Amino acid sequence: MPDGRGITFPRGFIAGAVAAGVKDGTPDRLDVAVLASPVPCVAAAVFTSNQVIAAPCVVTRRHLGAGRLRGVVVNSGNANACTGEQGERDAVAMAAAAALLVGARCEELAVASTGVIGVPLPAERIAAALRGLELAVDGGEAFARAIMTTDTRPKVAEREVRVGGRAVRVGGVAKGAGMIHPNMATLLAFLTTDAEIDAATARDLLKGAVGETFNAISVDGDTSTNDMALLLASGASGVTIDRETRPAFAAALREVCGELARAIVADGEGATKLFEVRVRSAASAADARAAARTITSSNLVKTAIHGADPNWGRILAAAGRSGARVDQRRASVRIGDVPVFVQGAPVAFDADAVRRIFERSTIEIDVDLGIGEAEARAWGCDLSAEYVRINAEYTT
Amino acid sequence: MPDGRGITFPRGFIAGAVAAGVKDGTPDRLDVAVLASPVPCVAAAVFTSNQVIAAPCVVTRRHLGAGRLRGVVVNSGNANACTGEQGERDAVAMAAAAALLVGARCEELAVASTGVIGVPLPAERIAAALRGLELAVDGGEAFARAIMTTDTRPKVAEREVRVGGRAVRVGGVAKGAGMIHPNMATLLAFLTTDAEIDAATARDLLKGAVGETFNAISVDGDTSTNDMALLLASGASGVTIDRETRPAFAAALREVCGELARAIVADGEGATKLFEVRVRSAASAADARAAARTITSSNLVKTAIHGADPNWGRILAAAGRSGARVDQRRASVRIGDVPVFVQGAPVAFDADAVRRIFERSTIEIDVDLGIGEAEARAWGCDLSAEYVRINAEYTT
Repeated sequence: MPDGRGITFPRGFIAGAVAAGVKDGTPDRLDVAVLASPVPCVAAAVFTSNQVIAAPCVVTRRHLGAGRLRGVVVNSGNANACTGEQGERDAVAMAAAAALLVGARCEELAVASTGVIGVPLPAERIAAALRGLELAVDGGEAFARAIMTTDTRPKVAEREVRVGGRAVRVGGVAKGAGMIHPNMATLLAFLTTDAEIDAATARDLLKGAVGETFNAISVDGDTSTNDMALLLASGASGVTIDRETRPAFAAALREVCGELARAIVADGEGATKLFEVRVRSAASAADARAAARTITSSNLVKTAIHGADPNWGRILAAAGRSGARVDQRRASVRIGDVPVFVQGAPVAFDADAVRRIFERSTIEIDVDLGIGEAEARAWGCDLSAEYVRINAEYTT
Repeated sequence: MPDGRGITFPRGFIAGAVAAGVKDGTPDRLDVAVLASPVPCVAAAVFTSNQVIAAPCVVTRRHLGAGRLRGVVVNSGNANACTGEQGERDAVAMAAAAALLVGARCEELAVASTGVIGVPLPAERIAAALRGLELAVDGGEAFARAIMTTDTRPKVAEREVRVGGRAVRVGGVAKGAGMIHPNMATLLAFLTTDAEIDAATARDLLKGAVGETFNAISVDGDTSTNDMALLLASGASGVTIDRETRPAFAAALREVCGELARAIVADGEGATKLFEVRVRSAASAADARAAARTITSSNLVKTAIHGADPNWGRILAAAGRSGARVDQRRASVRIGDVPVFVQGAPVAFDADAVRRIFERSTIEIDVDLGIGEAEARAWGCDLSAEYVRINAEYTT
């Protein structure tokens, strides 16, 4: 039964966290976390598409290429990005220190960081703190707290599915962007399963799930240098993911990723509302996705939703600049269950009804492009004065 | 000598404005303006790249195809966008009413609108008001005021250049986004000259000038449905733009466009500062432009500048996600005259000095990608809580 442990809910995983004082002035805050497996795990990962990629992403990609992983070590408070060659040496040192704790080789550890960009990582302080870290089967919760930065709450998700009469578990933890410390839109997600799964299938399923979930959310349109989603499969359930068991497992993985992704948007910096945009009848899946993501990233759409302003023209205007094929004579827009624009013409609508929909904590927007068959969904949050306040504060 | 008349500074142009009550509740506000020439003018225009294009842009493009223009009629307070087929009929009716005033054919008038999207244009009210509009050589100022929406001040620019011993004048007027009325990021720019110029050269020079000026600014990253820049050449100076006179004229046109573009950014909704990003040593001009525009559009860069936060990592992270080729090992970043990142490594810098630079009303950021020869400049404004307030308010 799901119990809130997240990544240590699947069998074969232990975790823990420690306060290393990564950031000066917060010596008591949990800021270094380790997830480990006693046996080597099949691993798959996706990384930021930002060309300015952080050192831990570079090192983890290299370690993944060497084979199976025994775990991951993460710090918050410092992104170890734009730190030059020293940054890579520091990321390797952090992996080595965690490997010592886990009893693995350095190359068997993934490493992730999130925090301020361009400040050297205090690698020695982290290594020293790792020596006192304790790993346990109920350590998933401490892990979830330790990777938070501006997040206001930890984000964990779990699923148990019956596959061929046996239980397979999927767990996950993620961090997004909140309100303690600016400059940290990094998305980190760690996913575990006790399914037995081959590496190619793991990559496939992770890529598919991330595309529909984490890659479909936006807090502020700025892609981090440190984004990473990592899946570790211990095989401890004894259930193999094959052609028959794959659909149920894929659905569980997608649900865990989706729950974490929505939790990140709802807890976006300064966010008070979550909105879901569904774009239908697009010429292609890429078009549907481009339109949906552009709408969820539009400052004008986000501020209209913040102010409960039934200003639907901004939605259509965002679709029109998204690069997707749009023919305004065939497009329709619905807010909640209220049509506001139907096949190329505005319709009279009850503005108060739309205002009430915009005042909900979750809002659905439906855009029908009237061209093809493809559809996509994306999630965004409102843009508030609080977002500006958080991000205009000094980091130093 | 330049005298603040803007578009009626070049010889051969008259203008005027009237209060038509386009928007309910503001009956006394100038909101319909006409610019006219007694003789047909060579005309060139560029329009929004948004596929959801407003009716006046569609109609003006059609009229331009029919030959020379005698003028333009503009209203503020209603964008006539997303208004279906009725919108096109209303735009034509507006052109026809202005043509009657000017003594021209309907097809000789350009038409432009800016304001709320998706609300039917009160075309009859506009036509009635046009009957009382007076055109004069000093009407450029009233025109500049009448096209304002959320702008806080009118935007005009003028240049006089000596070409082959004779004076050629270029005038311009523009509107951007300010703080009276949300939902109006429309950029409208009207440029006049008394030079004699052929249509192909006019198109060429306008496209070049717009690319380096209006298309290099960003207030909030949302492309309007109504953007339009129109150049009218009366020929009244008797000076012909040929291979010899072209450089001086092109420079004057670019300067007028640049002055208006920077005025729009400085008066962006909620803006308190203007910043200029220069990207150098890029692999291509397109790369340089993409990096510069992504930096000026980044909410995280904009909020850091708003808060005078020396958080330079956001600048490099924005370049890294811009699509431009970026190799962080070769990149350098300078804020004002302070280097913060040099050839792939962060450098110790005086954070207070950078804070003081960020507190200026105009800030220069220099990004050297260290790859090629191309460069580009772009202009942006800070993102303030006031921007959110303006755009979260009810439109209806």
